[in-house]
Amino acid sequence: MRIDIPEFDQAAADAAQHRLDRLTKPQESLGRLEELAVRLAGMTGNPRCRFERRTVVVMAADHGVTEEAVSAFPQEVTAQMVANFAAGGAGINVLARQARAQVVVVDMGVRTAPTATGVLDRRLGPGTRNMTREPAMTRAQAEAAVATGRELAAQLAAGGTSIVLTGEMGIGNTTAASAVTAALTGRPAAEVTGRGTGLDDGALAHKIAVVERALTLHRPDPADPIGVLSAVGGFEIAGLAGLVLGAAERRIPVILDGFITGSAALAACAMAPGAREYLIASHRSVEPGHGVLLGALGLEPLLDLRLRLGEGTGAALALQLVDAAVAVRDEMAEFAEAGVSERLDG
Amino acid sequence: MRIDIPEFDQAAADAAQHRLDRLTKPQESLGRLEELAVRLAGMTGNPRCRFERRTVVVMAADHGVTEEAVSAFPQEVTAQMVANFAAGGAGINVLARQARAQVVVVDMGVRTAPTATGVLDRRLGPGTRNMTREPAMTRAQAEAAVATGRELAAQLAAGGTSIVLTGEMGIGNTTAASAVTAALTGRPAAEVTGRGTGLDDGALAHKIAVVERALTLHRPDPADPIGVLSAVGGFEIAGLAGLVLGAAERRIPVILDGFITGSAALAACAMAPGAREYLIASHRSVEPGHGVLLGALGLEPLLDLRLRLGEGTGAALALQLVDAAVAVRDEMAEFAEAGVSERLDG
Repeated sequence: MRIDIPEFDQAAADAAQHRLDRLTKPQESLGRLEELAVRLAGMTGNPRCRFERRTVVVMAADHGVTEEAVSAFPQEVTAQMVANFAAGGAGINVLARQARAQVVVVDMGVRTAPTATGVLDRRLGPGTRNMTREPAMTRAQAEAAVATGRELAAQLAAGGTSIVLTGEMGIGNTTAASAVTAALTGRPAAEVTGRGTGLDDGALAHKIAVVERALTLHRPDPADPIGVLSAVGGFEIAGLAGLVLGAAERRIPVILDGFITGSAALAACAMAPGAREYLIASHRSVEPGHGVLLGALGLEPLLDLRLRLGEGTGAALALQLVDAAVAVRDEMAEFAEAGVSERLDG
Repeated sequence: MRIDIPEFDQAAADAAQHRLDRLTKPQESLGRLEELAVRLAGMTGNPRCRFERRTVVVMAADHGVTEEAVSAFPQEVTAQMVANFAAGGAGINVLARQARAQVVVVDMGVRTAPTATGVLDRRLGPGTRNMTREPAMTRAQAEAAVATGRELAAQLAAGGTSIVLTGEMGIGNTTAASAVTAALTGRPAAEVTGRGTGLDDGALAHKIAVVERALTLHRPDPADPIGVLSAVGGFEIAGLAGLVLGAAERRIPVILDGFITGSAALAACAMAPGAREYLIASHRSVEPGHGVLLGALGLEPLLDLRLRLGEGTGAALALQLVDAAVAVRDEMAEFAEAGVSERLDG
């Protein structure tokens, strides 16, 4: 698998910075909005980049590890929520509408194939296997999932999407994300495993033990991210890793959501470290593994709102900050044209 | 001065919480967005409150303390920026447009009276006096500024404004905000004084000494907030304190911006502690005094984006989170109607 990620365009980033420094405000006084405008310029190679067509890709799949009672919700909720996405009633539908983004729902392997129209069929099977007993998927399935994500990025780019938001749904997928994060960062399961949709203390201890059991069984090699995904990943996590790669290959910025999409990005960067430059961390989830993987990726999240819904909801909120950064860059007056004096020592 | 602040409506807040708990998401998984929806219900007394007409009030004034060389920018920038606000080219104009809010610019006492059309004339004088030599304003001026803010809130409410965003402009006003914060919280000047628009280390030490000198001269009594405002405040700070009170009197939520509007809110709550319930802290500014006063008010900011522009820019960004909270509350499907199973132990 050959993946060519273009280099960050420093000249475009510098041009954006130069523009920001001429605007009627103290330099850098818009803080992280300015950083964002500069990074977006370097990603896209365009100091005046705009994002008209914006797509939230919500990949859904089921997880065999739910047999181990790792979630507060029953497995059928994955399929029910896919129907809810298709009907427009989920959190991501609401927040995507507010941010003027389209939602593309992808069945990567929900146990019962969704019947709702508008769900893209990219099924790799009826959910993964139970990672505490056998690999979650075959190596061929992991490779196919990554290839599927890359192809979807190509299709979205061809349709005009200029910024991609990541989202996911899959009962049990925080368990997979914890195992992937532990495997790729070398951190113990207890540090990267959290309460998911709302486990109590006893259930959390059990979930940590489940992750430890899977890691002990497979001993995944962090230098082999496809091996990690096949041992302890999920179809949606592998697919999202491919989506990140496919977007980065085309200089398309990717707004990550929370812990699960972050674990996919971690796997993508293990395959192609240059992909990191194209990532925007939307928020810091309450899942402890999320902070660990953001640190490993060197990303600072924009928001910290104690979100733990997933679906792409944090990414949709952060898209409004991207829009704010672009608007500031393009619409503010410059010192000279507005007749405003610059600083005394400047 | 009699100020009646209605009590937070716990029944409306509970009704909003009840609605949120029926939506297709794990309970509380939208974190601070849910908190916000609940607080807004309690403020307005309406569990389905909406905010169609939204107004950023940018109060501008000059500060005699600029004689002491406390700012990186010359005093004439206040008037120049008022013209920039009127022309629509400032940061707040851009971010208010993005958040569909109108901007109302109020001259509370800019040194040279603005000539631009559309600036409300509420002048109390050509800027305050130098607080290191004499009181910044008379007690009558401080009372008039507060009354002006309250009256403006009444006018905005009559015009249909249902949420108020605070903004300000005034070269030298972080010095006044630091002095007000120190006086009202009892914290030393060094803890609540920062770099404003960009002072270096030497200039910061000088600014701290200026604040200390003013506090030593006046020894303002924290139990007398009007006295604090007249000794070391600013016309825009006193006006914004009145605006906060006038909004709270009418159950209108107020989105604070950064340090200066925060110091105004601190003074407002010293006059009428119940006003605190109507405040939303938009962001945590890089000014150290901001964290101190947010702590004193018991407010947790929504954003932390290293902003230090003022004008209301942080408040405008936070308005989009208010909109997100309202949209989630109103537009998401409920478990029953979407056919989604609830949690296993629920």
